[in-house]
Parts: sequence; C-alpha cells; structure tokens
Amino acid sequence: MSGVKQVHGFAVHDSSGVLKPFSFTRRETGPKDVVFKVMHCGICHSDLHHVHNEWQSSNYPMVPGHEIVGIVMEVGSEVAKLKVGNHVGVGCMVMSCGECDSCKKKLEQFCPKVIWTYNSIDLDGTPTQGGYSTLMIANENFVLQIPDSLPLDGAAPLLCAGITVYSPMSYYGMNEKGKHLGNLGADNFLVSSDADALKKASQSIDYIVDTVSAPHDLEQYLELLAVNGKLALLGIPPKPYEIMPKRLIFGRRMVGGSLIGSIQETQEMLNFCGDKNITCTIEKISVDYLNTAMDRLSKADVKYRFVIDLETIQKA
Amino acid sequence: MSGVKQVHGFAVHDSSGVLKPFSFTRRETGPKDVVFKVMHCGICHSDLHHVHNEWQSSNYPMVPGHEIVGIVMEVGSEVAKLKVGNHVGVGCMVMSCGECDSCKKKLEQFCPKVIWTYNSIDLDGTPTQGGYSTLMIANENFVLQIPDSLPLDGAAPLLCAGITVYSPMSYYGMNEKGKHLGNLGADNFLVSSDADALKKASQSIDYIVDTVSAPHDLEQYLELLAVNGKLALLGIPPKPYEIMPKRLIFGRRMVGGSLIGSIQETQEMLNFCGDKNITCTIEKISVDYLNTAMDRLSKADVKYRFVIDLETIQKA
Repeated sequence: MSGVKQVHGFAVHDSSGVLKPFSFTRRETGPKDVVFKVMHCGICHSDLHHVHNEWQSSNYPMVPGHEIVGIVMEVGSEVAKLKVGNHVGVGCMVMSCGECDSCKKKLEQFCPKVIWTYNSIDLDGTPTQGGYSTLMIANENFVLQIPDSLPLDGAAPLLCAGITVYSPMSYYGMNEKGKHLGNLGADNFLVSSDADALKKASQSIDYIVDTVSAPHDLEQYLELLAVNGKLALLGIPPKPYEIMPKRLIFGRRMVGGSLIGSIQETQEMLNFCGDKNITCTIEKISVDYLNTAMDRLSKADVKYRFVIDLETIQKA
Repeated sequence: MSGVKQVHGFAVHDSSGVLKPFSFTRRETGPKDVVFKVMHCGICHSDLHHVHNEWQSSNYPMVPGHEIVGIVMEVGSEVAKLKVGNHVGVGCMVMSCGECDSCKKKLEQFCPKVIWTYNSIDLDGTPTQGGYSTLMIANENFVLQIPDSLPLDGAAPLLCAGITVYSPMSYYGMNEKGKHLGNLGADNFLVSSDADALKKASQSIDYIVDTVSAPHDLEQYLELLAVNGKLALLGIPPKPYEIMPKRLIFGRRMVGGSLIGSIQETQEMLNFCGDKNITCTIEKISVDYLNTAMDRLSKADVKYRFVIDLETIQKA
C-alpha cells in the first residue's frame, strides 16, 4: 500500500451528469492518514446538484460521494485511534484550517478553508475525489468510527443525511420529552398540499426540521408551530423566504439554519445510532445501476436513500 | 376608596390622535385587586400606533399608556403580597385566562384571551383604559413590585420597553460572557447607512436585538452575524422580511421573535434592575405637553423615552 494508490471509480466529465468508469490516483499515506477500502457510498441529493453543475461550482472530472463507509487497510505512523480492520467512514469534509474561530470551537463545517470530500482542492493542490470509488484516504481527524453493531450499508447515509438532521435537533434543543417534532419516522403525518389538514393542525407542532431544497412557502409551516416553536432550515433554495414578522413575534417562534454537523458531533451521532441500533432505510444498488439511480433520484423516486455497493465495481 | 372610582385622564376620540382631558370611572375594588395612584407613565411607540388607529383595531375614547408606575392606595381583602404605600407598576397586560397552555407555562403574553391594559375588553365587558390617568386598578397577579431603590419616573419604561429587550436576551441565551451584542448602551456603534462600516463589521456580531418597527432589509443585519449568531425581532412591520436560506445555513444563524415578557420574567427583570440600579434615560413631561410629545415621538425626536408626570394633571 505504500506509494501512490491506483483507484477505480465513477466520474462525471461535464454537466450532462453521466457517470462513467474512471481510474485515478490517491496520495501516499502520510503519518496521520487512514486508508480504507470503500464498501458502500450513499447517493446524496447534493451529488445530483454537483454532477449537473447546478451550483455553478463544479470541476470535472468529478468523482462524487460523501457518505462513505469501509474497512481500514492501512494507517499512518502517527495514527493511534484506528487500526487495520476497523469500520470507518468519511462524510462531507476531509480537512479544515484548525486555526480559525470555527475550528477552535470544533465547528469545522463553518471553517472558511474547509476542504470538502469532493469537488474541492486538497492541501497538495490536487482535486479531492469522493466515494464512488474503491479506495479512500483521509486525515484521521476526519475519519469517523462506525460502531461494529451497525451494518455498513445502512450506516453510510448517516455521514451526511443523518448528521444533517441530528445536529439541528441537538443544537436547537428539539429533543425535549413530550414535544411534537415534524420529521421522518413520525407517529402522524400531514400532507402540505392538504389545506384543510394544515388548518386543523395550526399551532400544534413544537419543532419542524425542514429538509426541502426547492423554493417553498415557509409561512404555511410557521403557521403550524406552537408557542415557542422552532423551525430548522436545512435545504438551500436559491430564492429568499418571505417571513411575516408577526408570525415570529406572536408566539416567540424562531427559524434557524443548520449545516451538516461537526466531526465531534458526527461521532456522537454515530455512537448514539450504534447504541440504539438506528440505520437508514436504503435501496442498495450495483455500480452498473448508477446512472439509472441518479435519474430516479432526480424524480424523488427512492425510499429513502440509494447506497452503492462498491464491491460490484470490478464487474463494471 | 370603596365603590366606583372617578378618574381623570387624557383620551383620544378619533384617529386624529389628539389627546384631550377625559374623566371616566374604574371598577369597585375586588378581593384580588390593587388600586394605585399613578405617578408616572411612559409613552410607548405603540401608543402612537394605537391613537392613530394604524393597526385598525382602535376603539375610542381611548386612554393610552402601559408603562404605569405609582403608589398603592388600597388593596382587596385577599391581596397578601402588596400593601398601601408600596411602589408598583402595570405593563401591557391586566388579565389572562389562566387555563390555556401558554398561561399554564406562565407565558401570559401568548394567551389567546389576554386582556391588554388599554384598548381591550375587560372581564366586566367595559373597555380597559391605560395609564395616562390618575388612578389604576388591576388584579394583583398583573401588578409588579418596583424595587424601592429605583426612582419611579426612570423605572416606568421598564414595564414595556425594558422587558421587551430583556426577555429575548434571556430566552435566546444572549447573555453569555465574552459575546458581542448589538444594542443600546454599547461600547461601539455602527450606522446602518454606512455601507463601508457594515462591510468591515461583517460576521463580527454574535447577537442582534432588532427593535425597528418599520420595514427594513434584514439581510444587511444577518450579514453582520458571526457563526452561531442570533437576531431577535421585536418590531412588527406590516411587510414580510426576505431571508436568503444560505444566510442562515452557512453559519448556523437564527432569527427569532419575542413579545414583551411574562409577568414572572418582568418581576425578575425589575429585581435585576433594582440590584444593578438600572433605569431608563427619559425626558419627563407635564400633561400639557402630551400632544407635542406625541408629535415629536412620531419624528423620533426623543432620547429615549417620554415619561408623563401624572401629578401635573390637576393643573391641566
């Protein structure tokens, strides 16, 4: 494993978004690096934005994927917390500056120099490439430990989707007993296009985690919030929301943003999921189904996460 | 003092907003009532909205005023916590239902049946009348104790303006040591029309208490907030704010409303001010200056609160 590593993966080469087999190299193992065989990688909706250059920031060729789990193959000479055979994962980030206010507070996701897992520039000046590939390498500080009690495939989406909803629930104090939280895995549900049902539910919900990435009317959700109600925004539509001041003031409601979560919090969430045996509802696919899966994802035709089985890559 | 009480005050009779001498009665003293001689009453900006019917909810004749302080003259047979001679105050509320969720949580300001100090309908079906008058009566649960260490004139605005800024700072956790809060009585200031200064201050403020009642661009204030920054909205412009999702998400910022404060919290704030000897910067006026003061207030020509000396009412 010493020296530069040859890796097989799938990359897009332009904004058509078509994924094709792609071979590339990853760096030599540094003293603080962890190298792992990628077993599974979730397909996040932001992968779809990136492959089609919808955020006008895509560089090609691009290997997407930031819900990456696998098995450690090699560790650098200074790595103490992990060893060969451990189950590990990498989420959206692979490095941050370590010196800014956000890094000092262990909130790497807000570091202005954060290096994202793919479509970013690594410390050595090369493009970062993601988890639609056979082998991953990252600094140990950005490698998460996956509890042995969790299956790797169902755990993969925890690295982005999982922490993205866990973090606001924790940060905004949405975990009080006896409160009503609007989220997946619920006791009840409301259809937002059913005006009568919404009216009946007026001011009945304590917390809403809003994961919608498309422009939508926030007022109808704020109307559902009880006194002291909180709405966490996770999606990033390109248009502003309109919020009536009185909606927030009469009832002391709040709207707050949240972005993935820190490394420390991600590990905390993974340990929590390990203890409670929580994984994601997934549809596992082989690499030859990748483009079909992306197409279905663009039509919201998946319950609830596609996860790629990277062991199928040799057959592609 | 037994029987119905004759009271002198100043009332508006139509949306011209002109205040004229007005005599009216207040109810007999009930077992839980506290009667007090009004010494001072602050002039709140919402008085101005009300006298001109700007919120389309004004009933005339209307005696405004909800920053009312004075000296107890009589207490009902069941009142235990107050006695004749005590310094007391009444803020924006004089009654609530006591049975709803908000009341049970001691958040009377969000009770759907809250009775406001003026321009509301009292339990006996008569209109409530405020503190631009010589005598006040209220249920003991809505009468605050003013610490003896505070001058009554400077304490009056604490009953609305004071609690309105205290409550969000407390509720939204804006009282951490070492943080930067945008508020009156500051170490530094920014002029919102100075684009260069705003740019230099980008992401430097932890908390903003936004007291502006007129429509304004929230984006330029959100841009000032650091990571984890919080903005509390207190003013109620009739138009929606536009908020870009990314502004809240990258930096985990939040926008939350707040409305005056509960009775319990108001008492806590008054005790805090008593301990720290905090009062308001006021311009004290006699009743014959009332209409001039309202006119000046409409032009923001006051630093920072007009307070009426009700002992001047006999001379009017």
